[in-house]
Parts: sequence; C-alpha cells; structure tokens
Amino acid sequence: MGSLALLGAMPELSVFQYNLVDNIFSMTVATMGAAALFFFMGRSTVGVAYRPALMVSGIVVAIACYHYFMIRHSWQDAYQLSDGTKYVGTGAAFNDFYRYADWILTVPLLMVELVVVMRLAQSRATSLLTRLVIAAALMIALGYPGEVIQDPAGITMRWVWFGLSCIPFVYILYVLWVELTQSLETQPEAARGLISLARVVILVTWMVYPIAYALGSTPGALEAAAGSGGDPSGLVGLQVGYAIADMTAKAGFGVLIYFIARAKTYEDSKKGIGLEDVPTPIVATA
Amino acid sequence: MGSLALLGAMPELSVFQYNLVDNIFSMTVATMGAAALFFFMGRSTVGVAYRPALMVSGIVVAIACYHYFMIRHSWQDAYQLSDGTKYVGTGAAFNDFYRYADWILTVPLLMVELVVVMRLAQSRATSLLTRLVIAAALMIALGYPGEVIQDPAGITMRWVWFGLSCIPFVYILYVLWVELTQSLETQPEAARGLISLARVVILVTWMVYPIAYALGSTPGALEAAAGSGGDPSGLVGLQVGYAIADMTAKAGFGVLIYFIARAKTYEDSKKGIGLEDVPTPIVATA
Repeated sequence: MGSLALLGAMPELSVFQYNLVDNIFSMTVATMGAAALFFFMGRSTVGVAYRPALMVSGIVVAIACYHYFMIRHSWQDAYQLSDGTKYVGTGAAFNDFYRYADWILTVPLLMVELVVVMRLAQSRATSLLTRLVIAAALMIALGYPGEVIQDPAGITMRWVWFGLSCIPFVYILYVLWVELTQSLETQPEAARGLISLARVVILVTWMVYPIAYALGSTPGALEAAAGSGGDPSGLVGLQVGYAIADMTAKAGFGVLIYFIARAKTYEDSKKGIGLEDVPTPIVATA
Repeated sequence: MGSLALLGAMPELSVFQYNLVDNIFSMTVATMGAAALFFFMGRSTVGVAYRPALMVSGIVVAIACYHYFMIRHSWQDAYQLSDGTKYVGTGAAFNDFYRYADWILTVPLLMVELVVVMRLAQSRATSLLTRLVIAAALMIALGYPGEVIQDPAGITMRWVWFGLSCIPFVYILYVLWVELTQSLETQPEAARGLISLARVVILVTWMVYPIAYALGSTPGALEAAAGSGGDPSGLVGLQVGYAIADMTAKAGFGVLIYFIARAKTYEDSKKGIGLEDVPTPIVATA
C-alpha cells in the first residue's frame, strides 16, 4: 500500500483477508454517514451556543464518510479474485493518500469541536487551538513519509518517521489532558463527569493509531508489501486498525461532545437561557 | 450464501426466484429511505425531549437503506441470466456480511430508541441498555458463524449456532416484555396503549428472523447452496424473510415510537411544556 500504491503492486491476500478489509471499509462508511446524520439533526436539541460544536462534529464524520467511500472504491479497484482462491493486485494503485487527506482536514476540526463545546475564553481558546493545530499538522506530515515506505530495506526510516510523528502526537495528548483537567473547575457541575471521561476517551481511541502503524511496520509486513514473501496480516491489521480508530475517535468522540452539549444546555436553561436564545460571545464567558 | 459468497459460487435460481429477491431488496431500499425521511421530518412535531428517539429511529433506517442498496448491488453482481431461462452465478461474491454489519449497528440503536422514548430514570436506562446491547451483540455474533455454513455436511453446526444465538434472542425479548410491562404504570395514560402494543410488535416482528434463518437451514437449501442439487427456495425464503423482518422491525417499529412520542408530547403540553422547552435530564424524570 503506500508507495507501492503509487507503483500499483499489491501483496497477495487470502479471500478472508481481502473481504475483512473490504467489509470494514463499508461498515466505516455506514458508521460515519449515520454519525453525520446524528450530529446534524442533534443541533436542534442543544442551545444555539453549542450548535457549532455539533456542526463541526458532523462535518468531521461527513468528510470521513466521503474518504472511506473512496478508500473502499480504490481497494476494490486494486484487487481481483484469482483462481477463486486468493486476491491478487490488478495493477491499479490502492490510494493511501485518501486517509492522510482525511486526517489533514479532520484532526484540526476535532480540536475545534472540543474547544468550541468547552466555550473557553477567547484568548485561551486561540492559544490552545494554535498549538494543537500546528502539532496535528506536524504529526500527520511526519507520519506520511514513513507510511509510504514499503521496502524492507527502509524499515529503519519507517520507524524514524514513526518516532518523529509521535513527538507532536504525545504533545497533543499531553496538552489536551492538562487543559481538560484544568478546565474541569470552570465547567458546570453536570458536564464535569463527561469532560473527565472525554480525557480518557481521547487517550484510548488515539492510541489505536500508532498500534495500527506498528502492525504495518514489521519486517514480515514490509516483505509482503514489497511482494517478496512475508506475511500480509500486518497490512490487513493496519487497514482494520485505522478504520476502527477513525470510527471511535470521530463518531464515538462526537457522541460524547453531543452529551456535553446536552448537559450544558440544561445548565443554561436553569439560568433562564432557552434553546433559541442568542449566546454571549465566547470571549465573555471566561 | 455466506461462505459461498466468499468463494463466489451461487445456487442456480429460476427467473422468478432471482427477480423476487431482487425486487424485495429494491422495495426495502425505498421503504427504509422513506421511513428515514418520515422520522427526520417528524422531529419538529414532537417535544425536544422525544427528538433524540426519532433521530435514532431515522438513523437506523438510513443505515438499513445504505446496506440494502449495497446488498442489491451485490446480488445483481453475483448473478447473470443464462439461456434466458435461469440465473447462474457470475463468479462474483454475494456479500452476506452487509446484513450482519447492518445488524451490529442498528440492533443496539433500536434498543436506544425505545429506552429514550420511554424516558426511564438514568440508572434504570443504563442497566437496561447495557444488558440489551451485550445480548444483541452476542445474538448477532453467534448467528453469523452458522449463517456462513453452506455445506450440507455442516448442517448440525448450523443449527447449533442457531440454538446458541437464540439464547440471547429469547433473553432480549423476555427483558423487553417484562420491562415494558413494568413501565406501563409510570407512563402517561395516553401512551400506555401504544407501549402495550409495542411489546407485541417487537415479539411478532422479531419472530420472523429465526424463521428466515430456518428456511435457509434445511438439507435441501444447503445442498442448493453447495451447488449439489437440492432446492434453492429456502435460500430465497431466507433473503425475502430477512428483508420483511427488517422492514417491520425497523420502519414499522419506528412509526410506533413516533406515535408514542406524539402522545407524550401532548401529555407534556397539558403540564405547560411547549415543543421547544428544554427538557429536564432523563435522570430527573424517574
């Protein structure tokens, strides 16, 4: 996959392996589409102040729905059944870049939906978002050169890029953990448990990404990718792992944002703020 | 079709049999899509408290609409007309997994829409949903290994998986029956008849699933599936049965949820709660 994708050589897969990846891609399309409907429709059940957060959650999964549709299409284009017993490459390229295009667009938006639902003071929100968005861009940009190395001889460089990408990755998780912990006190009682949970959800769901990358970075996986024997199961694990991580980190996380928005809407209603009342600008809610 | 699906061998069908399945799939796409429009639009006619239930009902049928569209596509890919008198396999696989992917996503959501419209106390709702979602996952996971057995020699195992899958199936129906019966007293007068009806609707519509599974599990059906003679009408019955069950258990059941939401909205209005008033969190409505 990756640079091989550019050359159009694909490792031979069993019927089960091919179908596992194909079906997970389809299920991801359905999950992301369903989540987009949920977040877009859910806007009318939260106060105006929280609707942008749900809107952004919906846009994240809509972008992912599109990309997984294209990823699946590319997967089906790249493989054909051979002898009715295995799947071999057609010569067409499997395009891994869809996933990185998706991440470039959606990871910053995931940061935005979290900051927006928290309704942090503007100065704090701006500083936080600037750091998070730059770190996310670095994380993705440093991961990609490693992802496209499929030659067993390049295994060291694949892990070097992995290590470099992990620096902003760990930085993002650290900043979010500290920030969310600090903000707990300023958030309404009813939302504290959910925001506390959000810290853990981010940590756990994001951890699947480096695991998936690692599965595709073993000597066996790289040999399979290069078409020189090896075991393609790590490559299958990489595709399945990224899909599961995307479902939980985007759709699952968005559901949590929805519940935070619901809890804060109810707290607001106790202060006499109705669903359709115009919210104060975020800068004033420090 | 199942494991056969993976190998791409399909039992020979009459023109009538092929078209019956193909047309039922198309009708299911239309029904699910129409139901999604109904539930999404219907949200504005019920109070804010009940909109999440309609939203989830709509998402369930939207997911099913996607999957039946893909199921039909796969069906048409898997068959071709031969001699103008019968349908034979093209070698392409019919993908049964779409249906199981659909169930994995939608059956838990069906439980959610029921619990949400009831507005049970949070502790009770959490306990109920946990049990129902685990049982639903078990039911689907235990059904699939049996579904993909298409070899007449595997008939015993096919029925063993059926029996195992029926344990959580019966547990879900039992829990829902008891829960709905107990909750009747706490529900407003106007909704009681509908909730009482919901118990029966769940029981009757869900019963079609094991019947459809059984139709595809006779010796004749398995011989047909394995391409060694036999009678494929059981396999046709399985496809038609699942489609009918999905239409009634998802779209039909959702309509009932809509009427319950309408009845409860009216009861709320008598207490001065308007359509757009922020509802109390479910925890407070025990």
